Amino acid sequence: MLPQWIIEKKRDGHALTPEEIREFIAGYTSGTVPDYQMAALAMAIFFRGMTPEETAVLTDAMMRSGDLLDTAAITAPKIDKHSTGGIGDKVSLVLAPLVACCGIAVPMISGRGLGITGGTLDKLEAIPGYRTHLSTHEFLDVVARCGCSLIGQTDRLAPADQKLYALRDVTGTVPSIPLITASIMSKKLAAGLDGLVLDVKCGRGAFMKERGAAIKLAHSMVQVGCAMGKKMSAVLTAMDQPLGRTAGNALELVETCAALQGRGPEDLMVVTLRLGAKMLQLAGLAKSDSAAQVLLTAQLQSGAAWRKWLEMVRLHGGNAAVLEDTTRLPRARLIEPLCAPLSGFLHQVDAELIGKACLLLGAGRTKTTDAVDPSVGISGLAKIGERIERGQPLAILHANDEQRLSEARALLQSAFIVSADKVGAPPLILEEIAP
Amino acid sequence: MLPQWIIEKKRDGHALTPEEIREFIAGYTSGTVPDYQMAALAMAIFFRGMTPEETAVLTDAMMRSGDLLDTAAITAPKIDKHSTGGIGDKVSLVLAPLVACCGIAVPMISGRGLGITGGTLDKLEAIPGYRTHLSTHEFLDVVARCGCSLIGQTDRLAPADQKLYALRDVTGTVPSIPLITASIMSKKLAAGLDGLVLDVKCGRGAFMKERGAAIKLAHSMVQVGCAMGKKMSAVLTAMDQPLGRTAGNALELVETCAALQGRGPEDLMVVTLRLGAKMLQLAGLAKSDSAAQVLLTAQLQSGAAWRKWLEMVRLHGGNAAVLEDTTRLPRARLIEPLCAPLSGFLHQVDAELIGKACLLLGAGRTKTTDAVDPSVGISGLAKIGERIERGQPLAILHANDEQRLSEARALLQSAFIVSADKVGAPPLILEEIAP
Repeated sequence: MLPQWIIEKKRDGHALTPEEIREFIAGYTSGTVPDYQMAALAMAIFFRGMTPEETAVLTDAMMRSGDLLDTAAITAPKIDKHSTGGIGDKVSLVLAPLVACCGIAVPMISGRGLGITGGTLDKLEAIPGYRTHLSTHEFLDVVARCGCSLIGQTDRLAPADQKLYALRDVTGTVPSIPLITASIMSKKLAAGLDGLVLDVKCGRGAFMKERGAAIKLAHSMVQVGCAMGKKMSAVLTAMDQPLGRTAGNALELVETCAALQGRGPEDLMVVTLRLGAKMLQLAGLAKSDSAAQVLLTAQLQSGAAWRKWLEMVRLHGGNAAVLEDTTRLPRARLIEPLCAPLSGFLHQVDAELIGKACLLLGAGRTKTTDAVDPSVGISGLAKIGERIERGQPLAILHANDEQRLSEARALLQSAFIVSADKVGAPPLILEEIAP
Repeated sequence: MLPQWIIEKKRDGHALTPEEIREFIAGYTSGTVPDYQMAALAMAIFFRGMTPEETAVLTDAMMRSGDLLDTAAITAPKIDKHSTGGIGDKVSLVLAPLVACCGIAVPMISGRGLGITGGTLDKLEAIPGYRTHLSTHEFLDVVARCGCSLIGQTDRLAPADQKLYALRDVTGTVPSIPLITASIMSKKLAAGLDGLVLDVKCGRGAFMKERGAAIKLAHSMVQVGCAMGKKMSAVLTAMDQPLGRTAGNALELVETCAALQGRGPEDLMVVTLRLGAKMLQLAGLAKSDSAAQVLLTAQLQSGAAWRKWLEMVRLHGGNAAVLEDTTRLPRARLIEPLCAPLSGFLHQVDAELIGKACLLLGAGRTKTTDAVDPSVGISGLAKIGERIERGQPLAILHANDEQRLSEARALLQSAFIVSADKVGAPPLILEEIAP
């Protein structure tokens, strides 16, 4: 079967057979199907969509394009969490050690930041010595020893997705629900999971700005995961303002440490505990959100979660001392507040503009080859609904370059809207999607 | 401007600006825009279409991607004809010398056959010595001396189209009216024409099977040609049965010679004279179809058209003696009739099946690198509406291989439908499209 026949079939609105999808992806992985045929198929999928059955086969074919992790030796329930990405989203760092304390194994393969969204790996790499690339053997060994490990994607994990992800970025084929689903799920499920909880972000700082599209994506991923025999759960969470009060790699580590010591900001804890509750329920370790949250809160209060975090960091070669004394983390040279121009209530904190300001400061990358400055970013972020006094800091900028600082400040000024009318904190958990 | 932004804009249904189209095509020609981005844009154009303005700019950008022929030294009106391709279509060979006799200059750049459609160049190459590749200087010199020259496309003529044509073939992006329009018109108009007559074929042996789509394509090409300052005219002609009574390269040459001596089959002459009449009118040499046809018929009857054909062939290095004695043209080893199984009237002669049978015999190519056998094909084709006696030949097969002969015969048997009901000859000229 010629690849163009498969492209033409999808172009004309027909569903592809499992054989057609598998043959195309196998050819793309081996190189017999060139990038231009994959690009044409991706654009045809953008316009025509895929049935849930097609999306599941595409996910499976992409997952099987590389190595599958053999986690059979780990007897604990293997449950992971995936977020579609937001500003200030350090949930993975808090959640993995926290649920590991409850007896879940979390073999978490994370990504780097691109564009305005921060990456879990970049945050971990702000810890001196932390190795984000372990061999498969080391990775499984860390999971077996402490219950969780957070590392980066290897070349041999879902290579078809790695090629396609890069191709979609330059061919206008990113915003397609079947392609997003297959990309996320093929990577995650290659890690040998029993279940997966999805944090689908929605709002101005998220990839999915519209609630309808976010719900569709959540349903698509839950459906595909179930079709592949995994326990699935998804939570739609708000991403109009950043999560927590920090954005930037070392600054988010400080907030992570506080959270693991039971002193995290309220919104971060609400999201973390809800996702953790879903993980515990998928693992069969709790019967309800409230029962699960009791278990999770106890781990925070006893110090168990905090000790688990330090243990995991040490097992990756990281210097845990900098977490016990966070003043030893990388620090920016210039630290300046952005002050409120008038008194009132905070109506808007634009997550997208805050993400762009962090990018300007050097906390993220516009190209995959860019270097990241771990020390810069924004801390002390005021939250929507808070009472603000004129002159009070709305945020604190951390920079290493005067020019960048002044550009970020200019951008940041329009991110905040203060008004006399009283306003409440907006809802954080928007919807739950179960199979 | 990044190429992916242009792809995304078209994907989302917006019209591209002239600058965006020119930048994308210039990048594609130079190689800075890779095939995969062009493939994604082509698929987005398939789904979203283009406005007439966008199509005209795309055509112009592709035309300007290479050399433009400078025909200023030729003072005669420069008018060409283009056919979208059919089975047994030898009109160009008859038409070019015929209108050249009336004072039109025809710098005709033709293509090779691909799939079931024959190519003018393949027919010319059945003449020993005929050079289908001349330098630009030689080409213009032949046009200046005898009024017409038929050659193949050079690497420097609309290179963007040459790349895109090959890419579309393997990415499912062939059947898009703006892309077909730009492909045809960019090549044709690079030859420095004053006007162009289009023969848009429609029916089972044509690329456009549906009349509605054929009309749309004709309108699109006429509109773009006019926008580029050319005199345009289009004729929609039937391609359900082959044109004339032969299909295959040397066999079509025999029929061409007969036509230029005033002994051509009726359908071939009707189409040729109508297209010639349009060319004469675009050139300002006749005021009506009927006045033009009087002039053209006189050239056939006087022998002027025949002498012009021999002169042109000689100027290309061709051995014109084989045209004066066509028994000297390449001949197949096996010549066998396909006889009518019953008496009646001929209701169907399936041009597509006849094209496939010719391909099987070796008259065409399935890949651009295939060699063509000039001697094989089909002659003596009966025409729809003719009275048939049982045992009378419906066609004569010319083959060089027993296996291929028997396969072609099997295919051919289902191409003809003979039935007792009387039926007339179907209309040949379906519609005329003027600006």
